[in-house]
Amino acid sequence: MRPQIVLFGDSLTQQSFGSGGWGAALANNYSRKADVLLRGYGGYNTRWALFLLHHIFTLDSNKPPVATTVFFGANDAALLGRTSERQHVPVEEYKANLRKIVHHLKECSPTMLIVLITPPPVSEEGRKAHAESLYGEKAMKLPERTNEVTGQYAKACVDVAEEMDVCFINVWSKMQETEGWQKKFLSDGLHLTPEGNAVVYQEVIKVFNESWLCADELPYDFPHHSEIDGKNPEKAFQLKCS
Amino acid sequence: MRPQIVLFGDSLTQQSFGSGGWGAALANNYSRKADVLLRGYGGYNTRWALFLLHHIFTLDSNKPPVATTVFFGANDAALLGRTSERQHVPVEEYKANLRKIVHHLKECSPTMLIVLITPPPVSEEGRKAHAESLYGEKAMKLPERTNEVTGQYAKACVDVAEEMDVCFINVWSKMQETEGWQKKFLSDGLHLTPEGNAVVYQEVIKVFNESWLCADELPYDFPHHSEIDGKNPEKAFQLKCS
Repeated sequence: MRPQIVLFGDSLTQQSFGSGGWGAALANNYSRKADVLLRGYGGYNTRWALFLLHHIFTLDSNKPPVATTVFFGANDAALLGRTSERQHVPVEEYKANLRKIVHHLKECSPTMLIVLITPPPVSEEGRKAHAESLYGEKAMKLPERTNEVTGQYAKACVDVAEEMDVCFINVWSKMQETEGWQKKFLSDGLHLTPEGNAVVYQEVIKVFNESWLCADELPYDFPHHSEIDGKNPEKAFQLKCS
Repeated sequence: MRPQIVLFGDSLTQQSFGSGGWGAALANNYSRKADVLLRGYGGYNTRWALFLLHHIFTLDSNKPPVATTVFFGANDAALLGRTSERQHVPVEEYKANLRKIVHHLKECSPTMLIVLITPPPVSEEGRKAHAESLYGEKAMKLPERTNEVTGQYAKACVDVAEEMDVCFINVWSKMQETEGWQKKFLSDGLHLTPEGNAVVYQEVIKVFNESWLCADELPYDFPHHSEIDGKNPEKAFQLKCS
C-alpha cells in the first residue's frame, strides 16, 4: 500500500535502527507516508551483497521500492594481509560491483531514487583502542583499515554515482570537515555514534528532500485526525479509502 | 520475504520511531529477521481505526503479519464535554471495537501473535502544564483526560484480551509502579519520554520473547558474514538462498 524505501548496506545500515540511528530517524520522518525497510548485513562487502541483490530486489515485483540507499565499502576497504582481509575487495571490483547494484536497481524501477553512500572515515587510533579493549596484548599491531585507503573507496563510490547519474553522499569527506570527527562521529573508529548517525541522517534527508520524495509533499496514507468529523467520520474515509 | 510485525495504534505508536522509541528498538531487535511496519495514526480512536482495519490487514493477503500490536485507548478515553471530546469513544464501544479488531486479525491469520496494549497512565498536572505552555491563560481549566477514566479503558482492554485469549500489556498499571512516573515516563502528561518508551519496549519484547517469535530463535534471512568462506562465498549462499 505505502511506498517502500529500502536501506541496503553493511553494519552501518544494520545498526541504523539503534538508539539515535539514521534509519530510525528516516522511518520517523516518513511515518504515515512510506515504509523504511532495513536490509543491512553486518560484515558484508559488495562482493557478497551481489548474492542478495536479486533476492531483495526482485525484477518481477509489481511494487518495487521508490528509493534505495546503497551503503557499502567499509568492509571492502579492509586491508590485505591484516586481520580483516577476508572481507577485502579490490577497489576496481568494488566499483564494478556498485555498477552492478545500480544497474539492477534501475532495471527494477527506472524511477527509483538511488543514493550511493560512501564509507565513513576510519580512525586508526580508534580501531587500535577497540582491538586492545577486546584482545589486550594479543591485539593486532597494524590497523586492519586505514583512513587513506577507505578514502580511495569513497572516491570510487562517488565516481560510480557520477558516471551512472545517481545521487551520492560523501560521508567520508563530510565527517572530516568537523574537528574531532574521530571520536565525535565514530564509536570504535569505524561504527557510528549517535552524532555520527545524525550526520548521515542529515545528508540522507537532504537528498530525499531535494527529490520528489520529500516527506512534506507526500500524502498521508489516511486522513489526518483533524480532518475527521466526529459526528460523521465516514465522510473523511470515503474520500481517502475508496 | 521476511516476516512482518505491524504496530497498529495512535500517536503512541506513530511516534515510536522517534529518538529512543519503542518501535525503533523493536525493529533493531528484529534486524535481519523480521520487518517492523509502522501503522500509527496520531489522534485516532478505535472507532476511526475500524475504517483502516480492512485496508491495512487485507483478508486476501498471502503473507499476513506474523504479529500485530494494537495500542489504542488514549484518545477513546478523552472526556465528554472537554476540549478533546471529538475523540471520545464510550468504554463499552471501545471494548466492542477492540473485539472487532482482534476478530479481524484472527481472521487474517489464526497464528498471528496479537498483543493488546492498554493506554499509559495520564498525568493531569502534566496535561495542564502542557496546555498552559501552548495557550497561556486561554488554556482549559479542566483536564481533557483523567488518569482514573483512562484506567477504566486500560481495564477494558485487559478484559477483552482475556476474553479473546490474546496477549496484553497493562502499561497503565506497569508505569504507575515507578515513583515519579508522571514526569519520568510522560513528556506532556500523555505521550512517552525515552524512559517511557523503554518501559513499553521492555514489556513488548517480554511478550515476544515468550512466544515463538523470540528474535534469538528466528533465523537470519541470509548467512551471517562469519559463515562466508572468503575464497568460496557461493557455498554459503547456495545453502541459504536456494
